[in-house]
Amino acid sequence: MLPHEIERESFRLIEAQLEKGRFSPQEYAVALRVVHATADFAFADALRFHPQAISCGIEALQRGCTIVTDVRMVQVGIASALLERVRGRTFCAIGDPQVAELAQRYGITRAVAAMRHSVPHMQCGVVAVGNAPTALFEVIRLVREEAVRPALIIGTPVGFVKAAESKEALLTLEVPYITVLGNKGGSSVAVAIVNALLRMAVQGKEPR
Amino acid sequence: MLPHEIERESFRLIEAQLEKGRFSPQEYAVALRVVHATADFAFADALRFHPQAISCGIEALQRGCTIVTDVRMVQVGIASALLERVRGRTFCAIGDPQVAELAQRYGITRAVAAMRHSVPHMQCGVVAVGNAPTALFEVIRLVREEAVRPALIIGTPVGFVKAAESKEALLTLEVPYITVLGNKGGSSVAVAIVNALLRMAVQGKEPR
Repeated sequence: MLPHEIERESFRLIEAQLEKGRFSPQEYAVALRVVHATADFAFADALRFHPQAISCGIEALQRGCTIVTDVRMVQVGIASALLERVRGRTFCAIGDPQVAELAQRYGITRAVAAMRHSVPHMQCGVVAVGNAPTALFEVIRLVREEAVRPALIIGTPVGFVKAAESKEALLTLEVPYITVLGNKGGSSVAVAIVNALLRMAVQGKEPR
Repeated sequence: MLPHEIERESFRLIEAQLEKGRFSPQEYAVALRVVHATADFAFADALRFHPQAISCGIEALQRGCTIVTDVRMVQVGIASALLERVRGRTFCAIGDPQVAELAQRYGITRAVAAMRHSVPHMQCGVVAVGNAPTALFEVIRLVREEAVRPALIIGTPVGFVKAAESKEALLTLEVPYITVLGNKGGSSVAVAIVNALLRMAVQGKEPR
């Protein structure tokens, strides 16, 4: 069985089980990709979309916006072939020596410092936080207190402490968001959401 | 709440709920990290360890062996600070142009070609497959038919088609393995297992 056959059969199985229910067709496409990436249908129930999330996300990606990520795992999971077709790029500051310095100088964590350092790339961009609740809380603070305006925030931190809270807080923002409620989440979920949107951005932009 | 406080509280919650049961103390440490990375206790039930998996894995890492990964997401998730302390390194061929050429020439997938291309690094190394069932099947074939002998194979592909089968096949090998049965898995699970072993390798190697 070849990979594309495995993928096709996999989506057939997921579509047979995943009800369209409360999703718009584009939200459903995202839900399919998240379930495909995790083999866990619970994520479909946990998904929450701001009403403008998909349209703003696609529009930003079609402009070739920057995708800011909290960790390298999210950054490298983003499909580079799709990214090239919209002339987009990714930005992840977590390993930047300037970020380590910033963290030390202000007594903040590297995850938080990385988000502050990424502010110029966040404006009208897509922010994808797949790992650290503290990074997501910082993005929320930047929106509320410092007028930072991403086109879309994808927030899927994982964990038993503060992850669920950080995602609940995201729901209160007026900036478009996509999240999965509860403890579960992670880099693979954030990546699946970004790549689903990138696929739609490419399809909408290019002649089929 | 600071990240190390979040982590400490998180492990306290997990330990309170996760029974030591059938795990050795070192296997339990791995199980804790996998549950921490996924916020999903089901992974603890799904974990399977070859009897020599932990000891062979730690021994190889303490030698500074190469960790071969199927995808970049697993490669970049491996804790570089821990890796440096054992003078280890990672190797991921998936993006190598030679691999694309190999795949085209032999009519095989890039995931399979990447594993074949990684053979010289696999001998006595750790192999971590977090994504592609086809990559894990190829590693199993290399062991059975081409006398490739990694010190440890970590195999945690995710998906509804062929992933569970690839992990069941891993159980039949005599080469040490760590896996999670069933459909679920993924890069984060493979990374959590590698980093748990790296932590033990560092603790065993350095004066405390």
